Amino acid sequence: MTLFTRVQRISFGDCDPAGIVYYPNYFRWMDETFQAYLAERADGHKALCERLQSRGFGLMEATLAFRSPGLEGQTITYALTEIIWSSRSFELTYRATDGDRLLLEGRERRGVFVDRDGRLAAGEVAALRDLLV
Amino acid sequence: MTLFTRVQRISFGDCDPAGIVYYPNYFRWMDETFQAYLAERADGHKALCERLQSRGFGLMEATLAFRSPGLEGQTITYALTEIIWSSRSFELTYRATDGDRLLLEGRERRGVFVDRDGRLAAGEVAALRDLLV
Amino acid sequence: MTLFTRVQRISFGDCDPAGIVYYPNYFRWMDETFQAYLAERADGHKALCERLQSRGFGLMEATLAFRSPGLEGQTITYALTEIIWSSRSFELTYRATDGDRLLLEGRERRGVFVDRDGRLAAGEVAALRDLLV
Amino acid sequence: MTLFTRVQRISFGDCDPAGIVYYPNYFRWMDETFQAYLAERADGHKALCERLQSRGFGLMEATLAFRSPGLEGQTITYALTEIIWSSRSFELTYRATDGDRLLLEGRERRGVFVDRDGRLAAGEVAALRDLLV
Repeated sequence: MTLFTRVQRISFGDCDPAGIVYYPNYFRWMDETFQAYLAERADGHKALCERLQSRGFGLMEATLAFRSPGLEGQTITYALTEIIWSSRSFELTYRATDGDRLLLEGRERRGVFVDRDGRLAAGEVAALRDLLV
Repeated sequence: MTLFTRVQRISFGDCDPAGIVYYPNYFRWMDETFQAYLAERADGHKALCERLQSRGFGLMEATLAFRSPGLEGQTITYALTEIIWSSRSFELTYRATDGDRLLLEGRERRGVFVDRDGRLAAGEVAALRDLLV
Repeated sequence: MTLFTRVQRISFGDCDPAGIVYYPNYFRWMDETFQAYLAERADGHKALCERLQSRGFGLMEATLAFRSPGLEGQTITYALTEIIWSSRSFELTYRATDGDRLLLEGRERRGVFVDRDGRLAAGEVAALRDLLV
Repeated sequence: MTLFTRVQRISFGDCDPAGIVYYPNYFRWMDETFQAYLAERADGHKALCERLQSRGFGLMEATLAFRSPGLEGQTITYALTEIIWSSRSFELTYRATDGDRLLLEGRERRGVFVDRDGRLAAGEVAALRDLLV
């Protein structure tokens, strides 16, 4: 199952002295895939936050397994493959590939964060789910 | 147990429109903690790679759990708390705190990558372990 | 005159707590425009370096004038508008726009860096020019 | 003259496949030097913005001249050497060195941006100057 895909070209500056992608960039591109999904399904992160009175759909946990290295000049495809909705968090699953070759398997657990007594707290996610699904 | 610590000040540009640290930066700082540990224990990543004929001590997997948000102006301490050595990989455990407050719990699984038949492959890690422990 | 254009979508994480693009990202995208130009005209930075026995087409100077702010969700177009070739450096001029609105005017001066007596030195640029123009 | 200095260690991931610092990072560190200066002289960017009812002390122009390359493991010192105050902008001058060796000469022109009729506009800088000088 694929909910959304986004293409990313690997540029010179994304790579480290070993000549492969410096790994925090892969997390940045995973987040950018999520953001682009919000823009396609609804009006993007900013408008959704205003509508849901949320400070942001931030992270509780993020994981990547690196299956093969990404190289300068490659074009890779991030696929958002599944979202599992709980009451106060939702978990997204990703795969990044270059043709048949698997580069990454990833997972983000996010919340709908709201201000509560001066702190960020994880609110109900149902309203976001209803706008996206 | 703490093997190594490194202090990181959170700057304006590390934060996103929600006013908290943009999460890929936390992975960058986790890697920088590993690199600083290599520099303190041995001669750093580059010299160790030359000595061990490795292309790099790259990632097989990386995970962070975000326990509380990091804010502009805070100074946080990354602690490398444990390394578990297997034959072809090693796993590092991290915690980041601001005083008593826990911000992050992290984990990296890394290999000692070598060129083999034109591809990167995970070699034995014992020689690296002997230089660090 | 436009030699090359490249489109960049501004994502949530590219922006700072003021809600606008954190400015070092604009330099990253200017470099990515140069790299994409090398990929379109020739075989990209890596192949060109091997062919010209260069360590890289690095920077001597970089400048950006910020004419109006970039916002989350905008799609901006970087245009490489001119290259002026000297004997040991070349200067590239850029403009970034969102429709009629001008965001950036930029300039990079680069060299063709070669190893000479254990140091990086700026070599002749004529061979690169002949491959690109 | 030196108004403020800040030390930056160059880490593996700051460097590109040519083995030297990827240049947008130098701009990030120049901004971090400015932010650290604000924190030392006053209460930092966020508190100053609230006090001056400003959206941020953003950039109008930024320039770096790259005098010698930065390498993994080096520790460089950014020095803020001068601030020239005009009525609606201020210009900061920087130098980055590794011991006697000069790496960078930089310049930022910044404004005190305020919301005016739904747009960002450059306001008077005198109140900021009075808090810093």
